[in-house]
Formats: sequence, structure tokens, C-alpha cells
Amino acid sequence: MGNSFGKYLKLTTFGESHGRAIGGVLEGFPAGFQVDLAQLQHFVNRRRPTTQSHSTSRSELDQVEILSGMLDGQTLGTPIGFYMLNKDAQSADYESLKDVYRPSHADFTWQQKYGIRDARGGGRSSARETLSRVVAGGLALQYLHSLGIQIVASVISIGGIPSEIPQTPPDLAQVDSDALRCADSVASAKMQQLIHETALNKDSLGGVIHCWVTNLTCGLGEPVFDKLQSRLAAAMLSINAAKGFSYGAGFQSSAMTGSQHNDVPLESKLGFKTENNLAGGILGGISNGETLTFEVAFKPVASIGQSQKMHSVDGQIVERTIVGRHDVTVVPRAVPIVEAMTALTILDFVLLQKINK
Amino acid sequence: MGNSFGKYLKLTTFGESHGRAIGGVLEGFPAGFQVDLAQLQHFVNRRRPTTQSHSTSRSELDQVEILSGMLDGQTLGTPIGFYMLNKDAQSADYESLKDVYRPSHADFTWQQKYGIRDARGGGRSSARETLSRVVAGGLALQYLHSLGIQIVASVISIGGIPSEIPQTPPDLAQVDSDALRCADSVASAKMQQLIHETALNKDSLGGVIHCWVTNLTCGLGEPVFDKLQSRLAAAMLSINAAKGFSYGAGFQSSAMTGSQHNDVPLESKLGFKTENNLAGGILGGISNGETLTFEVAFKPVASIGQSQKMHSVDGQIVERTIVGRHDVTVVPRAVPIVEAMTALTILDFVLLQKINK
Amino acid sequence: MGNSFGKYLKLTTFGESHGRAIGGVLEGFPAGFQVDLAQLQHFVNRRRPTTQSHSTSRSELDQVEILSGMLDGQTLGTPIGFYMLNKDAQSADYESLKDVYRPSHADFTWQQKYGIRDARGGGRSSARETLSRVVAGGLALQYLHSLGIQIVASVISIGGIPSEIPQTPPDLAQVDSDALRCADSVASAKMQQLIHETALNKDSLGGVIHCWVTNLTCGLGEPVFDKLQSRLAAAMLSINAAKGFSYGAGFQSSAMTGSQHNDVPLESKLGFKTENNLAGGILGGISNGETLTFEVAFKPVASIGQSQKMHSVDGQIVERTIVGRHDVTVVPRAVPIVEAMTALTILDFVLLQKINK
Amino acid sequence: MGNSFGKYLKLTTFGESHGRAIGGVLEGFPAGFQVDLAQLQHFVNRRRPTTQSHSTSRSELDQVEILSGMLDGQTLGTPIGFYMLNKDAQSADYESLKDVYRPSHADFTWQQKYGIRDARGGGRSSARETLSRVVAGGLALQYLHSLGIQIVASVISIGGIPSEIPQTPPDLAQVDSDALRCADSVASAKMQQLIHETALNKDSLGGVIHCWVTNLTCGLGEPVFDKLQSRLAAAMLSINAAKGFSYGAGFQSSAMTGSQHNDVPLESKLGFKTENNLAGGILGGISNGETLTFEVAFKPVASIGQSQKMHSVDGQIVERTIVGRHDVTVVPRAVPIVEAMTALTILDFVLLQKINK
Repeated sequence: MGNSFGKYLKLTTFGESHGRAIGGVLEGFPAGFQVDLAQLQHFVNRRRPTTQSHSTSRSELDQVEILSGMLDGQTLGTPIGFYMLNKDAQSADYESLKDVYRPSHADFTWQQKYGIRDARGGGRSSARETLSRVVAGGLALQYLHSLGIQIVASVISIGGIPSEIPQTPPDLAQVDSDALRCADSVASAKMQQLIHETALNKDSLGGVIHCWVTNLTCGLGEPVFDKLQSRLAAAMLSINAAKGFSYGAGFQSSAMTGSQHNDVPLESKLGFKTENNLAGGILGGISNGETLTFEVAFKPVASIGQSQKMHSVDGQIVERTIVGRHDVTVVPRAVPIVEAMTALTILDFVLLQKINK
Repeated sequence: MGNSFGKYLKLTTFGESHGRAIGGVLEGFPAGFQVDLAQLQHFVNRRRPTTQSHSTSRSELDQVEILSGMLDGQTLGTPIGFYMLNKDAQSADYESLKDVYRPSHADFTWQQKYGIRDARGGGRSSARETLSRVVAGGLALQYLHSLGIQIVASVISIGGIPSEIPQTPPDLAQVDSDALRCADSVASAKMQQLIHETALNKDSLGGVIHCWVTNLTCGLGEPVFDKLQSRLAAAMLSINAAKGFSYGAGFQSSAMTGSQHNDVPLESKLGFKTENNLAGGILGGISNGETLTFEVAFKPVASIGQSQKMHSVDGQIVERTIVGRHDVTVVPRAVPIVEAMTALTILDFVLLQKINK
Repeated sequence: MGNSFGKYLKLTTFGESHGRAIGGVLEGFPAGFQVDLAQLQHFVNRRRPTTQSHSTSRSELDQVEILSGMLDGQTLGTPIGFYMLNKDAQSADYESLKDVYRPSHADFTWQQKYGIRDARGGGRSSARETLSRVVAGGLALQYLHSLGIQIVASVISIGGIPSEIPQTPPDLAQVDSDALRCADSVASAKMQQLIHETALNKDSLGGVIHCWVTNLTCGLGEPVFDKLQSRLAAAMLSINAAKGFSYGAGFQSSAMTGSQHNDVPLESKLGFKTENNLAGGILGGISNGETLTFEVAFKPVASIGQSQKMHSVDGQIVERTIVGRHDVTVVPRAVPIVEAMTALTILDFVLLQKINK
Repeated sequence: MGNSFGKYLKLTTFGESHGRAIGGVLEGFPAGFQVDLAQLQHFVNRRRPTTQSHSTSRSELDQVEILSGMLDGQTLGTPIGFYMLNKDAQSADYESLKDVYRPSHADFTWQQKYGIRDARGGGRSSARETLSRVVAGGLALQYLHSLGIQIVASVISIGGIPSEIPQTPPDLAQVDSDALRCADSVASAKMQQLIHETALNKDSLGGVIHCWVTNLTCGLGEPVFDKLQSRLAAAMLSINAAKGFSYGAGFQSSAMTGSQHNDVPLESKLGFKTENNLAGGILGGISNGETLTFEVAFKPVASIGQSQKMHSVDGQIVERTIVGRHDVTVVPRAVPIVEAMTALTILDFVLLQKINK
């Protein structure tokens, strides 16, 4: 279980980091939609290390191969099967780690759960798995764009350095123009400096991503257990290294009074506009037509170049240095992953809501 | 969709707040387990207003009626159907609200989604729906206890007043001995004072709940999309008024370095013990055998006694006072709901993990 | 698992035959539909022994109690919870059967599967469970009628006595006017005579039911694994005592040539009309707009009044007579069950197809 | 929807007949199992036209490419992704059929459902889709063999020519030694003669397949809606050209009395052995430990070389000959498909039953 996401629009992914390929099957995508495959590849490439290379030293080429579900680039309503070959695998780096469980990694738990694991590159627990999500999410995004719905995410803090959160959602080009996908260039400069210093320490950093969904119709989300925020939280916490999710006023709301937090309506007859949108676009689990906003916290990368104490597979505590390539932070690269998972969640609800109309 | 929770252990709930009854069906509960029905009723009663009545002025009697799935109190492996009659409904209070959408309530979104709603008491969007979850969760808790697994939650902040989080999980009796289910009595006294003042202002408060799960076996959680934290986040965000979820070091982890956040192993051969358990008991989406810890943020109660601006059903902005009973805060009453949803999530994974062994 | 039916329109049932109640939760039913509750009760009553009592000697009163999902008889889009009390339980009849496994019953297999069973009246394996399906199916039928879709089933053979299958679907009143719900009165008279003789022998009879669905739109059914016939087959084989399912030309098609079996188009521009509709209204798993036809075979009732060899719970072979009330045949009573399961299947696909449009 | 099969062991397939590839993802397969890839390819090859070529004139090479889920041939517990390239596509044959709906094909219904279709080779409605099922089913079969469970199917009639059904299940080698996979060589000779004559008439034939599952443990199948026969029926009716399913005494049971049909226990203390096993190994939806038996009826191949009346896409009735390769009958080739779908169904239940133990 656990390799599928979505109720009607359903993504099933497969693949280990250093196996032959990573891929997926996207079921339920509407028929008759003209896909822009170049744009899809471009979106997928956004998950690659940014050119400024603050956050990674790897170069990966992830050519999306579509196996089914389209005819001349037009969707057939049938499952879209796709894969990306694992060309860049340096499995040798991991040879020395076969006999230990890396700290804060999934090595130990996967071994316990299954009694076997592909130790090379983390196997299926590797963040490389999210590549399949970005492909499927990129397709969902194109469809949502055709409906006028926009999804954009940006980095709002790294290593504890905060930034100013834009009042109006930035656009994708603006976000991508910054080396760290942060809309506040002053803060970004500080973050880049911190990343530089942290790299010298062979250490790593976490951060927070903010996401906006605009032009969402009212009525998305299902009551009780499939609330919009419930499914979004599940989507976000399924991303590697994510440790927290909140929407609207989030954890801050817990310190407010009702009279402070209750949104005050701004306009009548023009849909649902409020002064502060502390609800984050969701009431009772269902979108109210305002901008949907939420945040996701990411822990620092667990793979660091310092020597660390760790459990060996035979139950000892040993000290070892993890060889190989290490990202100082993956938060900027997580931006398209957040967008992709959001797109899959939203399009699923858009399709389901057609039944209620 | 959205009225069921769980993959193998599956709860389906039904019922509107002021309809005839609230209830549910719990499928997949193990056969041959002797249920303590008195203890179950006691657990369900914990969701009622606490005797100190700081948090509510209503008295509710929620007698659990079991319709199926047991023979002489022993489970049959068949679905456990149950319901509680809605005796306490004061629908008249809501008569005056038929023509408006209460601020920060689900009134507007449900009306938009379905074109019809039961305006009395919020209908199905009422927090009364969680009563069914507490019944099912109470059953799951009894089963988990028989396996040695303990789940306990407590209030750690209300209205922004923080409290000291116990290093070792408190027990249920200790938590319940406090009027606000807060383990820090000094902080609790301050919170009670704030609640008192807030009540005079006809306002309301939110807060944060911390939850511990101890004696969890390693291996619970499914990879990728059904990670333990992913399902817990979905469970928690499905609770009325919840606005955020985090586990382990949570949002704080985003400001740490990897060398600070990576857990350092404490003992060898004795399972997985670390110095700080910043992982919160989960690695790669799978329990590692340490104590599972997470937090849930709740917004202040949306129903307040002050006059407020709100949308009318015909698109005007009107000013209106919501008549009826109002809780200043529901956070203490949410404690058993958090425990119940946790129990349902954990037992589901315990059962699924039997397949992998 | 196994207590839910349907993908979007989902029925979950609960209840043991001699427990407190039988009931269910119907999720996904469209909002804003005015239910005719008297007609629903009438439809449910059709499952009771027919007045002519050829097929049973029991009198059962099954008052449907609706607990949620409606306001003044109008559906809210929320789950419809309902139950029927088990008033007529003569559990004493089953006391003597606690220590044996009745031949061709589920006693042995349920005991093996769960290690515990409610021996009274077959517990959850009793055909009484289908009562909940008839309630939910009756609701689905009312909605389908509002779309112009008609579902009618009738008995076409009992005990091997064949009858003439009407070329055009009979109407429900016509079917119900016959004591055995057989549209061929000459054959019905022979069947009634056989039932009379079989009752004297303390034996039982099986039979075959034919079902027609008319005015079905084209496009219902999902490709590959959720073909219309696949879901119908699952629905029918889930009915107690059902042993076979076929649609269109069914098993006879296996003896035809392609040129005989391929349907010849009759009219152009008027939808999909063929000479013989041997396809039974389904092509490639999807409805083609013609009348959907299928048949379900039922084995003879396993509970007979004769002394029989059977396994005892301690592994011996004993000879025993099953005390209690026995139906000679349940096939006429299965007619509304077939209709109900068909309605649930069809409405589910009708709702799902809204996503594709 | 509809591209996935199974609750815990779940196969999702993708691919159009003349698209780039056909493939699937098999989730839930137990970890740590050594797969025999050569045997798997051999099993998949059984779906190819038999060497005697009575049933087809095509040569297809279907090399299975495994993309994930295994390390050195050992399963990892992660999804097994696989595909087979579509090398043999003669799309030109189908060019002339773009403007018509072939009789008894899915052309019309898919076009109506999705508004678009891949007309080449039937697209996703092609029987080539079942290739993915044979791969996944072949894997499931290997695992079931390791548990001692055997699944074997054979042809018992073609074109109405009956054969003697073996009292004890034939073995696979015996079945495969016959050109038509019929265990009765006398009947097979007659069938081959009929196939020869039918080929000359440019016509086609259907048939019936019988399947046996031996050494099945008691307790497989879930009550009510997921009865073993219910899921098997769904599995079989999802196979292209299947028109009927029955188990045990099947449709014949409808003409028996209870005293004839009720199975008489043969031995005590040695499990569940009866004289005739008319129950077909299933009681109350759950396996009883005897041999599971069922039959599947297949209609004659719809693609025939004769000129036929058919609908054109613009609503006319035209007469046209379908160019291309035509199988006289596909029933022998359906044998491994029946076995594969049975294996997927059984292994799913085997895994689920681990939860109940």
C-alpha cells in the first residue's frame, strides 16, 4: 500500500533511486486535453539543482518518457504511463553504507518493515521518487491552468532566516528568477550566505515553503475526512523531509481570539472576499473561493558530510562519514514538488466536484 | 466521498448535528476481542464539557448504542454499527441564522457545494460529528492497550499561553485531573484566568495539543503516500478547527542544521533510542520504535457572542449576533478526539503491518 | 473488508441476523432529491415473503428507520444512515446448531476465518443482510427513475422449469402480480406445483432471474477492471446463494460463430439499435445505449427440513435435522435484491460518468 | 477509474495496443521473494499464439522489462513496474476503420465515453492489455506455488463442442501439450476440425474455460461484498470477450433440489471433504479448503473477415470488411489470462487473511 495518491485522479508511482527507472501511472486525467510536452519537461527540470548551485552539486538529466495515454500529445482518458531512466546513479558511494543505518534516514525502518532494502541511494525512500510526482503534477498543472487556476510556491525561510511573505502571490517566473526561489531578494541574499557557510561546515539546512492557489472555485473538498486541508496535509507530509503543515493563519491562529481570527467580509455579491483571509481559503474543509494558502516546514537534509554516530546493522554504535554528494538544502528544489502535489490534490477535487453539480 | 477513514480498519460516520442521530460503522476491527463497554462510554464522556465547565456551558448525554458486531461484548470481526441519539438539539437557536452565513463557519461552503444544507447546528459540519470518531477511536484504543501501546494527548497552550511540555508522557488520569487537560498546573491556572476574561468579552480562544504514542513497534506506516505522518496529518486536519500539524521537531526543525537535527543513537541492541528523538518516532514515514510525538494547532471557536459582520444568503453584508450556547474554547474537549483519531490511524497500520510479516 | 459496495455511491452495511439491528450507510447519494419514503418502504416490503406464501412461511416486519442524510425527506448530500430492528429473531431454533456446521452454509468457513461466529440465524452471513441493500437500492432506484432509467427483474426458471422470457421488459406491477414473480403464467403454475411437492418432501429449489435495464445512456462503465459487466457480476455474486452470472447471450454465446453473435445494426442516427442485442447492451465494458440484460443463477436453499449428514464442530460427521422455518425457494424474494444491487451499480456509474463529461 | 485490480495486492495497468508500450505496476507483492524471471517470461509467452497456430496467425514477441521492485531478482516489497514494447503494431490495417464502429467492438462506446479514442488496434480496449495482467499474474502464481497452491485452467468447449471435464485437475504441462489446451484429446480433435472449417468461412468461435485451484487454505474471501466468488466473477468478466461466470455447480445448481445440491461430508478431521464438491470450494463467500472450481464463457471473436453491416461514425449503416489478422478463436490463449487473474485474486485474499490471523 501507499504508492497511490488521489481518489479519482490517481497517481501510482514506482521505482528505486538506483534501480533501472523511476516512473508512474496517472489515471483519471481528463480526455481530449492537448499536453505541452516541452513545458512539462521544463517543469520537471525545475526539480533539478538550480543553476546557481547553492543547493546541490549534482547534475541530473531526467528525460520524461511517455508510454501511453496520449495520441499526438492529446490525452485519451486512459492511464498515462511514464518513466525516467536512472542514469546518474553512483551506487559505489553507498557500498560503504550497507552495514549501517544512516542517522535520520529511512534505512533502519525500511529494513525492519520489509526485512530487505535496496541500500543504494536510499532505494525507494530516496527523494528521487518525487520526480514521478513532478511529472504527474506538471500534467495536472497544465490542466488547471486551462481552467484559470494558478498554483505557485516559494521559499519563505531557510535555516531560520525569515523573509517577507508577499501579500499577493508571486508568479512563477519571479520565483524562479531567485537562486533560492525566495520572493524577498534581501532575505535570499542572507540565506545564500548562510548556505555558503553551512557548506563549509559540511552541514545542512531546512526551511519553509509557502504556497498560494488562486482562482479556485468554491466547493472543492469533501466533508469530514477528505477535507481540502486534510488531503493537502497528507500530500505535503508525504514529501521527503516535510515535518509540518499549516494553512491560513496556521499555528498562529491558536494564539488569537475568535474576534481576531474570524474573517470579516469585504464585498458582497462578488463571491467570498474578506479582509485578511485568515481562513486560508477553506471553511469546513471546502474551498470558499478565496486564495488558498498553506505552509510546509522541511527539516535540514539528513545526509551531511560530517562524521556521525550511527547504528550498525548488527546493533553497534559506530562513527562514520557518509561519502557522496550532499545538498546543503533541498528546500528550493522542493518548490516544484509542493506545487505538483498541490496540483494533484486540487485537480482530484475539481473532478470529484463535477459529480456534485 | 469523505465519510470514511482508514484503509483496513475503516470508520464510516453519518449524521447531522440536529438530525435524529449521529453514528458510524467500524469495519475491520479484530475478531474475538472483549470490549469493556463501560470504559468505552467513559472515554466517550471525556468529549463532553469538563465538570469545571471552563470550556462550555452545555450538558450533553451521549449514550452509545451498539447495533452489531459484538456477541456478549466480544467482537465478531464483523462491522460494529453504532449511534447516539441527538437529544439536546436546540434547533430554535439556529432559526435566526438560516438567512446568513456565519463568519468562519462551513455554512457558505456547504451551501455552495451541495445547494442545500441542514442549517440547524451546522448540520454535518458540526463538531458533534466527532462523537462517532471518539466511539470508534475508543474501541481502537482498548485494542491497542491490549498490545501495550499507549496514546495520550494534553493541552500545551491556550490563547497563546504556553506551558511546559512534559519530557515523559503524562498518563490519562493526570491529564484529566486538570480542568483544561494541561499537564502544567501553573500554566493551566493562567489559561483558566484568560478563559474567564475571554468569556466576559463574549470571545473565544484556540490552542495547541501535544500527543504521545508509546511502545509502538517499529515498521508502522507505508512508504511514499501513506507515510505514518501523512496519515496522522490527514487525521488531525480532519478535526474541526484544526489549522496545523507537525511531528517531532516540527516547524522548529526548519531552523536547525542537520548536525543539530540528526538524532544521535543512545543505546545499541536495545532498539532505537536516541538522545533527543527530534524525528518524533518516524523515519521515512515508518515508525522507528521510539515515542511518536506530534502537535495539532486549533483556531479559536468561530461561534462568538459578539455582534459580527457576515454575508447574508442573498449576497448582502449584514451585522448579526449569533444566539445560542458558545464554548470559549474547545481545545480541552479536543483531547479525546485527537487520541481517538490517533488510535484509528495507528491500529489501521498495526493491522496492515501483519501482512508484511 | 468487504462490507462496502460502490466507488462513489458507496453502501456500507452492518448487522447480524439475530443481533440488535441490520442497517447501513449510503454515501454519495446526490443532494436535493425528494425521497418518497412510503414508496421506499413498499419496495423494501417486496423482499418479504409474498402473500401467496409459496416461498416462505415467515412474517417479517422491516420498518426502515432513517437516521441521517435527509431534511424533510430531501437528501442533503450527506451519508444516509438507516437501520431495521431484528424483531422476529427466533434464536432458540439455532441453539441446537451451535455444535454443527450446517451443510452448504457459511458456518464452517466463518468460524475458520474469524475463530468466532454468531451462530444464531447465520449471523452476518444470513440473507437478512440483503435487507440493507434493498433499502439503499430502493433509494438508488428512485433516483434512476427520475432520470428515466428503469430496472426490472423477473424469475425465468425454478427447479429447472423454464419459462418464456419476454421480448420486451415486463413492468414491475406485472411481475409482482404473479405469485413467483414470473412473467409467464403457464410456467409459473408449473413452478408453483413443483414448489408444493417439494415442500412436502422437506426439500428446496433454486432458479434463475433475468434482469433488464432500459433507457440507459451510453458511456456507463469504466474500462479494463471496472467494466459494467464486471461490476454487475461482482454485485450479483455477492448475493447469498447466487452461483452464476451472464449477460447478453451469456454462456450460449460460446457456441455461436462470430457472424451469428455480432449484432447487426438496425437503425442509423437513432442511437445504437441492433437486431438481436446479443451484446446485452454492453460493448468493451461500457453501456452502448441498448437494453442491458443479464441473468443470475441461484442454488436451492441450503436449509432443508430433511435429516442430513454434517460436520460437528469437534470434527465428527453427525446426522442432524435443522429445526426452524425453511423457505422452499427464495428466488422470487431475490428479485428486489437483484434490482437493488443493479440500481446501486448503475447509479454509481451514472455519477462517475459525470466526471467524464 | 478502472485500471486497478486488487485491494492489497494491486495491479494497475496502462497502455494502448498500438501505443509505445503496454505495462503495469504491481503493488503489495511480498518482500524477499526470489522471482524466476525465465519462468515468468515462459508464462507470459503462453499467451502468445500456440505453435500449432490453429487460433492465430500473428507472431508477437513480448519481452517483459522490469523497471523496479527487485534487487538481483529478489522482491523488495516495493511496486514492481514493468512494460512490454509494442513492436508488432500494423496500424495501417486500422486506417480504413477510423470512420466506422466495428460490430461488437468497443469502438462506439469508448468514443461516446471519452469523445476521443485511439482507433489503432482497439487502443486500450484491445485484448493486448491483458498482457500486463499475465505478467503480474505470473508473479503471483510463482508466489502461490511457494505456498503449495496450484492454479490450472483448460478449455472445455469450443464452438459448442463439449469435452469431458477431468475429475482431478490436469497439470499445466498436460494442458499445454494439447493444441487447444483441452484435456480431452478426442474433443480437441473435433474442435480443431471445426476451427479449420470456420477459418475457411472467415468466421470465428467462442468457448468455455474451466479453472481449478487446489490446496487453498480455508478462510479466503471477505464477507458480503468481497466474497471470493464475487471478486473472481469481477476478475473474469473483466477479461475481453468473457460473457459469463459460474462456480461449483453453477447454472446447473438452479435445477437441483437442496438435498441434491447440499454437499455430503466425506471425511472427518481431515478438513472439509465432500462427495461432490458442488459448492466449488466456497461457502458463504469464503474458501472451505476444497478445490475451487469455476467456469468462464467466451463469445466468438468479434473481428471476422466477412463483410458486415456496421455503423459509421457519422451515423450511417455501411457494409465493410475488416482488414487485418483475425484469430478464429482466442479461447486457448485466454487460458493463461484466466490463470493470471485467478492468481491475482487469490494472492490478494491470502495476504488480506494474514490480518485476520
